Amino acid sequence: MASLSSLNSICIDRSCCVKYRDGVKNSMVKKLYVRSSLAKSATQNSQFEEIKAQKSEKFRIGVLGASGYTGSEIIRLLAGHPNYQITLMTADRKAGQSIGSVFPHLVKQELPDLVAVKDADFANVDAVFCCLPHGTTQEIVKGLPSNLKIVDLSADFRLHDVGEYEEWYGQPHGAQELQKEAVYGLTEISRPEIQSARLVANPGCYPTSIQLPLIPLIKANLIEVKNIIIDSKSGVSGAGRGAKEANLYTEIAEGIHSYGVTRHRHVPEIEQGLSKAANSKVTVSFTPHLMPMSRGMQSTIYVEMASGASTEDLYQHLRQFYENEEFVVLLNKNEVPHTRHVRGSNYCLINIFPDRIPRRAIIISVIDNLVKGASGQALQNLNLMMGIPETTGLVSVPLFP
Amino acid sequence: MASLSSLNSICIDRSCCVKYRDGVKNSMVKKLYVRSSLAKSATQNSQFEEIKAQKSEKFRIGVLGASGYTGSEIIRLLAGHPNYQITLMTADRKAGQSIGSVFPHLVKQELPDLVAVKDADFANVDAVFCCLPHGTTQEIVKGLPSNLKIVDLSADFRLHDVGEYEEWYGQPHGAQELQKEAVYGLTEISRPEIQSARLVANPGCYPTSIQLPLIPLIKANLIEVKNIIIDSKSGVSGAGRGAKEANLYTEIAEGIHSYGVTRHRHVPEIEQGLSKAANSKVTVSFTPHLMPMSRGMQSTIYVEMASGASTEDLYQHLRQFYENEEFVVLLNKNEVPHTRHVRGSNYCLINIFPDRIPRRAIIISVIDNLVKGASGQALQNLNLMMGIPETTGLVSVPLFP
Amino acid sequence: MASLSSLNSICIDRSCCVKYRDGVKNSMVKKLYVRSSLAKSATQNSQFEEIKAQKSEKFRIGVLGASGYTGSEIIRLLAGHPNYQITLMTADRKAGQSIGSVFPHLVKQELPDLVAVKDADFANVDAVFCCLPHGTTQEIVKGLPSNLKIVDLSADFRLHDVGEYEEWYGQPHGAQELQKEAVYGLTEISRPEIQSARLVANPGCYPTSIQLPLIPLIKANLIEVKNIIIDSKSGVSGAGRGAKEANLYTEIAEGIHSYGVTRHRHVPEIEQGLSKAANSKVTVSFTPHLMPMSRGMQSTIYVEMASGASTEDLYQHLRQFYENEEFVVLLNKNEVPHTRHVRGSNYCLINIFPDRIPRRAIIISVIDNLVKGASGQALQNLNLMMGIPETTGLVSVPLFP
Amino acid sequence: MASLSSLNSICIDRSCCVKYRDGVKNSMVKKLYVRSSLAKSATQNSQFEEIKAQKSEKFRIGVLGASGYTGSEIIRLLAGHPNYQITLMTADRKAGQSIGSVFPHLVKQELPDLVAVKDADFANVDAVFCCLPHGTTQEIVKGLPSNLKIVDLSADFRLHDVGEYEEWYGQPHGAQELQKEAVYGLTEISRPEIQSARLVANPGCYPTSIQLPLIPLIKANLIEVKNIIIDSKSGVSGAGRGAKEANLYTEIAEGIHSYGVTRHRHVPEIEQGLSKAANSKVTVSFTPHLMPMSRGMQSTIYVEMASGASTEDLYQHLRQFYENEEFVVLLNKNEVPHTRHVRGSNYCLINIFPDRIPRRAIIISVIDNLVKGASGQALQNLNLMMGIPETTGLVSVPLFP
Repeated sequence: MASLSSLNSICIDRSCCVKYRDGVKNSMVKKLYVRSSLAKSATQNSQFEEIKAQKSEKFRIGVLGASGYTGSEIIRLLAGHPNYQITLMTADRKAGQSIGSVFPHLVKQELPDLVAVKDADFANVDAVFCCLPHGTTQEIVKGLPSNLKIVDLSADFRLHDVGEYEEWYGQPHGAQELQKEAVYGLTEISRPEIQSARLVANPGCYPTSIQLPLIPLIKANLIEVKNIIIDSKSGVSGAGRGAKEANLYTEIAEGIHSYGVTRHRHVPEIEQGLSKAANSKVTVSFTPHLMPMSRGMQSTIYVEMASGASTEDLYQHLRQFYENEEFVVLLNKNEVPHTRHVRGSNYCLINIFPDRIPRRAIIISVIDNLVKGASGQALQNLNLMMGIPETTGLVSVPLFP
Repeated sequence: MASLSSLNSICIDRSCCVKYRDGVKNSMVKKLYVRSSLAKSATQNSQFEEIKAQKSEKFRIGVLGASGYTGSEIIRLLAGHPNYQITLMTADRKAGQSIGSVFPHLVKQELPDLVAVKDADFANVDAVFCCLPHGTTQEIVKGLPSNLKIVDLSADFRLHDVGEYEEWYGQPHGAQELQKEAVYGLTEISRPEIQSARLVANPGCYPTSIQLPLIPLIKANLIEVKNIIIDSKSGVSGAGRGAKEANLYTEIAEGIHSYGVTRHRHVPEIEQGLSKAANSKVTVSFTPHLMPMSRGMQSTIYVEMASGASTEDLYQHLRQFYENEEFVVLLNKNEVPHTRHVRGSNYCLINIFPDRIPRRAIIISVIDNLVKGASGQALQNLNLMMGIPETTGLVSVPLFP
Repeated sequence: MASLSSLNSICIDRSCCVKYRDGVKNSMVKKLYVRSSLAKSATQNSQFEEIKAQKSEKFRIGVLGASGYTGSEIIRLLAGHPNYQITLMTADRKAGQSIGSVFPHLVKQELPDLVAVKDADFANVDAVFCCLPHGTTQEIVKGLPSNLKIVDLSADFRLHDVGEYEEWYGQPHGAQELQKEAVYGLTEISRPEIQSARLVANPGCYPTSIQLPLIPLIKANLIEVKNIIIDSKSGVSGAGRGAKEANLYTEIAEGIHSYGVTRHRHVPEIEQGLSKAANSKVTVSFTPHLMPMSRGMQSTIYVEMASGASTEDLYQHLRQFYENEEFVVLLNKNEVPHTRHVRGSNYCLINIFPDRIPRRAIIISVIDNLVKGASGQALQNLNLMMGIPETTGLVSVPLFP
Repeated sequence: MASLSSLNSICIDRSCCVKYRDGVKNSMVKKLYVRSSLAKSATQNSQFEEIKAQKSEKFRIGVLGASGYTGSEIIRLLAGHPNYQITLMTADRKAGQSIGSVFPHLVKQELPDLVAVKDADFANVDAVFCCLPHGTTQEIVKGLPSNLKIVDLSADFRLHDVGEYEEWYGQPHGAQELQKEAVYGLTEISRPEIQSARLVANPGCYPTSIQLPLIPLIKANLIEVKNIIIDSKSGVSGAGRGAKEANLYTEIAEGIHSYGVTRHRHVPEIEQGLSKAANSKVTVSFTPHLMPMSRGMQSTIYVEMASGASTEDLYQHLRQFYENEEFVVLLNKNEVPHTRHVRGSNYCLINIFPDRIPRRAIIISVIDNLVKGASGQALQNLNLMMGIPETTGLVSVPLFP
C-alpha cells in the first residue's frame, strides 16, 4: 500500500477488482479460512497460493483492544467481509492467547493470536479499529504509522474542544494536533467528511441513538432546541467486559436504575452535535438507565415542536431525510420501535408520536448499542474510508427472538 | 359483625384485643394453620377449639379474583397477618381447584378452595379485596352485601367523572351511585378519607409511583404543572397472568419498548390526582415502557420548577412531607433509587436531582408494582379501614438479589 | 423446472452457474432486493431485467407456517442466501398481513405477503420448508405437488414406525405412504440419503443435540447402550410463539423446572436413532428442563463406557468423526461448551469429561435450538437436496454477548 | 450470659420469657426500631427505656462478613425476628460504612455500622453467623470467645476429615481441634446434635438439595449407592458478590453452562454425607450448571432403585420421613418442583418420578440457594442452638412471580 495520499483511489480500484473476482474465489477463500483443517486434498497447495494472492488483495485490518465487547463485535462483523482480513489483534492482558480462548464464540475463526499493543507490528496493516479504553487511546493513536486509516471507538477524539475533553474526563487531551484532524463519524450525517478522513472518532452509543433523529429536525427548524428531554435505556454490554460488582448478573437482573444523572460523559458529545446543527449552544436533559439486556438501547426523546410544526411534519421530514439510507428506518405510523427488533444488526428504527401536551412530540429511536452504537457504525465508516460500498458486511437480519 | 355503622369502633376494639392476646397465642395459631397435618397430639382437640375461638376474632377476608397476580400477592401478604384470615377465594375459570394447584408457591397455605364468584357466600366475610379485571368489577361490587368493606384493585372506581370512565374504557360506568361513595386510596395522601371509607378504589401502579412525589410538590407550588414529562418503566407482572403472545418470555426478554404512548389508561387517573392537587386541569406527557423484569416500576419525571424554587427546596419539602411515613422514603442526596431494592416490599423510594437545563429537576421514584403499586397498598388501606395499625403485615425487607 | 426425476442434476448445474455468476451480480441483486426504494438511477431498468433473469435462476422457496419462530428463522437465514428466493409464505391466522407486521425484525425484507395455506399457489415454488404444528402437517404435505422438495420441521414424519407415531401423538398417522419415503435429516449422519431425498423429516432440537454425540459412539461400540441418562436444558423458543400462560415472561424468568419427565415426545425419536445405531432396542432416561433463555439447548449426557474404552477414546473418536464437518465441533480438552457461544449459529459444540465414577463419562453438547435444532439444519438439508454447497448461508458467527 | 455450659437451659428460659412478653411489646419494639425517626411523641423516653429493657432480653447477634449475599440474607431474615437483635456486623473492605450504603435494600434497617473483623467487640454478642470466604474462616473462628455460639456458612468446617479438606482446598486445615467439635448442620437430619452444638458447619447449597432426599432413601436401603448421577442447576448468587468477569450480566444472561465438572468442591461434602448414611464409601457423579437466575437451585438426581423397591416406595418413605417437617415438602404425585416456587423461602420441594429405564427413578429437589441453601438453614440451626422454636422468623411465603 503506497502512500497515504493515494489511498482512496487505490481503494476504489481494489474494491472493483475484488468485486469482480469475488464470484469465483471468494466463497472458496472463506471456506478455506474457516475450515482450514479440512484442506487436505491434493489441490491444497495450489489453493493456498491462490488464497495468499487473494489475501494480499484484501485490506489488512488491526483490532486494538480485541478482548472487549466492541473488539469481539468487530471481529464478528469482519468474519464474512469480502474486503478485509484481520492481520493483527492486540489485548495487553491476554497477550499470547488465541481469540477462541478469550471469546469462545469466535473459536471457529482463523485469526492471529493476541499480542500486547507495544509488540504490535503495523507493517502489515492498512487500517485499525481502536477499541481501547477511554483515556489511553490518545497516546496509542499518536504513535501509529501515519499511513494507517483509523476508526477510534473510544471517546478520546469525539470532542472538538479539547478544553471540554479535559473538563469531562479529568485529564488534559494527549493528542491535540490529531484532534484537529479527527472527523466525527456519525455516518449518515457526515458521510463526505468521513470518506476523506484518516482518523474517524466513532460516535458513542447514546449520541448515535439521539443525534440521528434530532439533527435533521433541528437543521430543518422543526423543533425547539430548548427543553429537549432525553430518557435513554441501555443494555449492559455498553459497560464493557470489565469485572465490576455493579455489573454482576445478580446486581442487574430483574431491575432498572438511572445512573450518571445529568453527569454522563456522553452529554458533551450530544450537545456538541446538536449545537452544531442548531448553530447555537444547546443544553439537553439526559438521563441514562441501565436495564437487564445485554444488547440494545432506546432513547425516548421529548421535544417541543417549532411554532407551526406538527408531528406529521417531523415524521415526513425524517422519513424523507433517511429515505435512501439502508440503516436508518422510519417505521410506519403508530408502529413502536423495539430494541429486540434490531438485535445484532446495524439498523436504527425511529418513530414519532404526538404528545398529550399540545405542541410537544415524542421521538423514539432504538439501536443495538454494540452495532450501530459502536462496531457496526465503525465498519460502516471504514467501508466509506476505504472506498468500499458502505453496507458491505453489515446487511444482516436482526436476531429475534 | 353487627351493622355497618358500628363497624369502625368494633374494629378498633377487636384490634386491641387481638393485640394483647397476640403474644400468647398467635404463633401457635399460625403454626397450626400452616402445619395442620402435624396436629396429631393428644392436645389437638383443645387446640382446635382455641383456634376456632381465635378465628372468630380475626376479620374474615374474601379475595375475589384469586388466580391472578394481584390476588396471589394479597394471599402472600395476608399469610402472616395477625388480624385477618381468608375465608373466601373466587376464580371463575379455576373454580373447584386448590390455590396450591393454581399457584404452587402457595402450596403450604391452608386456605379454602377456589369458587366461582356467583357461588360465593359472603355471610362469613367482613371485607373483600377485589382483584377482578377492569370492566367486570362494577357489576360484582354492586351486588356485594352493603356491610362489607371493599378494596377494589381494578380501575373501575378510580375515576370520579363517570364520563371520563366511559371515554377511556369504551363503556358506560355500571355503578354510578357507588362511584360517588368510592374513595381513591392513595394512602399517604388521603388517609382520613380512607379510614372512614367503605369502598376504596386502590390506585394503579403507575399513578402511585407518579402521584406520591408530585402531589406534595404541586400542592406546595414548588413545580409548574405544565410540561410535566413522565417516562415510566414497568415489570411484566403489571400485565397480569393472561396468556398473550406479547408477554411471552421470548417476546419480552432482552429488550425494551414503549407502549400505549400517550394513550395508556392510567393517564386520566394521573391527571385527576394532579389536577385536584393543583386546583386546575393538568395535562401530562406519560410514556410507559415494558421491560424484562417480573416486578418493579420506575417513574422518571422531568419537571419545571416554580419560579424561585430550587431542587433543594423540592427535596426538603418531600423529605419533610414523608418524614413520618413508613413506606415512602426520600433517599439521601445523590443516592439513586433502584427498583430491585424495593422488590417484594411496600416501599416507595424517591430522590430528586438537578437537571442540566436550568430551572428543571428530575424526580425518580420506584416501587414494586405488585405491592405498593397494588396489593400492598390495598392491604395498607384495609388496615386503615379496619382500624388496625397501618403497617401491620407490611414491614418486610425487600428481596435482593 | 422440468420433472422431479431430473431435479438433482439440474440443481447441480444451476448451482455451478450461480456460483460462477455470483461475484459479478449477486451483491447487486441483494442490494436491490433489500433496498429497492433506492433504485432510482438511470440504470434501474436494465438492472431490474437483470434481476428478473437472475430471479428465475434462484430456487423459489415456500415457507409454510411463516408466523412461528422456526418460520421466521428460516426467513432470517435465507435473507442473505445466494441461491434461494422466497416466493410464498403462508400463515393461516395472519393471512393478508406483511411479514414485517408479524415479525417487525423482518421489516426490511422484501417478501410476499402471508397467505392462507389453502390459497397458496405452488406453481412458482421449487421447495418448501414446512413449519406447521405437529399433527396438521401430514395432510398438508400429502397435498403438495409431487415435484416439490420438502423439508418438514414438524414431528410428523420423524418416526418410521407409524404405530409409534400414533402411540405418542394420540392420533393415527395421516400419510403413511409418504412416511415410507421420508428421510430423517440428521445431516452429518445421513448425508447421502438426504442428498437424494424428496421429503426430509428435520430432526427435533433435543434429538439433534443428543444424537450427534451418541450415534458415532454407539456405532463404534465405545459406550454401553443401557443406562444412558440425558439431562437436557432448553430455551423457551422451542415452545413456539403460541400464547400460553406457562410461557409468560413472569412464569419463566428467574427459575428452572423439569417438564415432560420421561414422557416428552422427543423420546421415541431419540430412541429410534440410537436403536438404529446400536442395532438393538435402546431405552434412555430423558429429562428436559425449561429455563430462562430464548435460544439455546444443552444436553448433559451421562454414559457408561464400553469395557476397555476410556474418555480419551471417546474424545478422539468423536473428534475424528467430525473432523471434516463445519458445524459439529469438538472443543479442546477441558473447554466447556456454553449455549451462549452458539447463539444464532448452526454450530454444535461438544466435549467429553471423565466422571468421578469409574467407567463413566459425561458428554456435553450445545446447540441453538432454532438453528442447528431446527431451521439451520433444515437449510443445511435443503442445500444438500438442491445440490448447493452444504454450508451456504449458514456460516455466520454466533452473537455474543 | 454466664458460662457456656449453662447456655442451653438459659436459652430456653429466655425463650419462654420472650414468648410471653411478645404480644404486648414486640410489635412496638419493631416499630420503634424501624421507624425511630417517628418516635417524637411525649412518650418517647419511656418507650425507649422499655426497648432498652427488651433489647437486653434478645439474643445479641454478630454477622461476620455482612457485605456478601449470605450476610445480607441473614440480616433480611433477622429483621422481623422476635428473639434476635444484630449488635455487630463486620466487613473488612467496607468498614465504617452503613449497611444501607452497601445494600440499599436494607436502608430501612436500624443497624450498627460495619467494622473490620479485627476491630470487632464480641463482648456484646451471644452468637455469630460467619459469612466469610472459604479459607479465612478457620483462623477467625479460632479466635472467637469460647462462649459464643457459631454458625459458620463457609466450607471450612464441613469436612470431618481434615486431610480431605487439604486435598480439595489446597491448604492445611487451620483449626483441627475445632473441627472435631463442629457439627454438620443439615437440620432435618442432625437435629439433636445441632441443638447441643456450639459450632455448626452450615451445609453448602448443593449438598443440602442433594442430601435431603438421598440420605433417608439410602438409610432405608431403597436405592443403590453406586451410579448416583446428580445434575444440578444453580442461580448466580451462589457465586457471591465478588467482581468476576465470568459472573457479569452479559456473560450469564440467556445461556447455561456446566462448570467444575467432577471437580466441584461440594463433592466431598456430598459424598461424606451419603457415605455416612450408607456406612460405606459412596462416590457420586456430580455436575453443576450455572444459569441466569439470581436465586434458586434444582438438583435432578438419577438413581437405581434397590432390588424390590418401587418409585412408590421411595415416595412414601420420603413423604413419611418429612411428614412433620415444616420446610421439606414432598409434592403431590406428578407435581414438578420449580425453583421459582421457593424463591426467598426456606422450603425444599421434592418429588420422585419413575424413569423409562426399568429399576431407575428420578428425584427432583429445589431450594432457594441463599435461604435453605445458606442463610435460612443457618437461622434454623441457630434457633435450635438457642432453644427457640425452630421455624421462628422463617415461615414466609415464597415471592412469585
